[in-house]
Amino acid sequence: MRQGFFITVEGGEGAGKTSAIGVIIDQAAEHGYEVVSTREPGGIPIAEHIRAVILDKSHTAMDARTEALLYAAARRQHLTEKVIPALQAGKVVICDRFIDSSLAYQGYARGLGIDDVLAINRFAIGEWMPDLTLFMDVSPETGLARIHADQGREINRLDLESMSFHHKVREGYLQLLERFPDRMIRLDAEQELDAVHRELKQIVNQYLPRRV
Amino acid sequence: MRQGFFITVEGGEGAGKTSAIGVIIDQAAEHGYEVVSTREPGGIPIAEHIRAVILDKSHTAMDARTEALLYAAARRQHLTEKVIPALQAGKVVICDRFIDSSLAYQGYARGLGIDDVLAINRFAIGEWMPDLTLFMDVSPETGLARIHADQGREINRLDLESMSFHHKVREGYLQLLERFPDRMIRLDAEQELDAVHRELKQIVNQYLPRRV
Repeated sequence: MRQGFFITVEGGEGAGKTSAIGVIIDQAAEHGYEVVSTREPGGIPIAEHIRAVILDKSHTAMDARTEALLYAAARRQHLTEKVIPALQAGKVVICDRFIDSSLAYQGYARGLGIDDVLAINRFAIGEWMPDLTLFMDVSPETGLARIHADQGREINRLDLESMSFHHKVREGYLQLLERFPDRMIRLDAEQELDAVHRELKQIVNQYLPRRV
Repeated sequence: MRQGFFITVEGGEGAGKTSAIGVIIDQAAEHGYEVVSTREPGGIPIAEHIRAVILDKSHTAMDARTEALLYAAARRQHLTEKVIPALQAGKVVICDRFIDSSLAYQGYARGLGIDDVLAINRFAIGEWMPDLTLFMDVSPETGLARIHADQGREINRLDLESMSFHHKVREGYLQLLERFPDRMIRLDAEQELDAVHRELKQIVNQYLPRRV
């Protein structure tokens, strides 16, 4: 029996996901919820081991479909061990990236196909789709500039080369918005931080059932 | 471009898969083919590492769907690194167990559903389904008796408990025969070894295009 509320936060680099998650945590707590904030693999040993296979530098021969299946496997294990028990206990679970990252990055930007990557992730997730997904939408140029300002370094040639990939990722997310209008909401993350956070609070207030 | 011929051999324990594979190898060689005989994970390091995650004894919390996704991932990697290159080089590839093992064991006998396990395996395999699948059909009782005769030990209580599972596996294979009549052939593996091998030769002669 599903009791809690499952929120995922999505977006490219420099979209401001981390500070957004902080705002959502505070709002959910104000609504009287216990909150679990997590990200894959989430400290789940099996999921950590799967992630280690994905990231192993000696695995240069790894096929894109092998990788997508491994991400789905790690997602399943994190979901069953951490997310589902928290939801069943009535908590709000906030997850930094989830199924839509696989759909946007691997399905769309890497060209495996959104439908095909969705199929293996539906197998992994079953009925446990997010109740609400916040897509923090920022142009790749703004996102990159923010990251570089944080790190105090100049934008280089490799950054620019990866720009077309990040544009494809954003296109992928925009397609997902059209496909999943009931659970997915776009936030204009180009705005000033204060404005983004005000909008976030409104969204959480609108969607999250009040407890207190 | 597909040039070779892809044969998979399936069946429960004690069905005689190993000796059958020997016969198929000889027949294919007689037909003028170079033959690659393999089984997953097939010495492919990435697939071996995935298999190690599946078999790790500390992973008692592993969910059945996580496991099915990991098997599909290992299958994909073994396929891309070993099977596809051999087929593209015009060889006959004989694989000891392949997609139908996942469908019969995890999809049917473990209850995940043949359709759902098929979906993730279609993602893993794409167009590279076997050209011919030999299902060595033996009753679980006969299979078990053969294994125990080989090992020189008595059948015990645990063996009998697992019998209902092996009956379900066989039911699963029989469903697959109905679903994939074009590529899947049942061999009566209850017969004397000589009779099984004669039938195998006939099947290979019938299905494998002659080269010499």
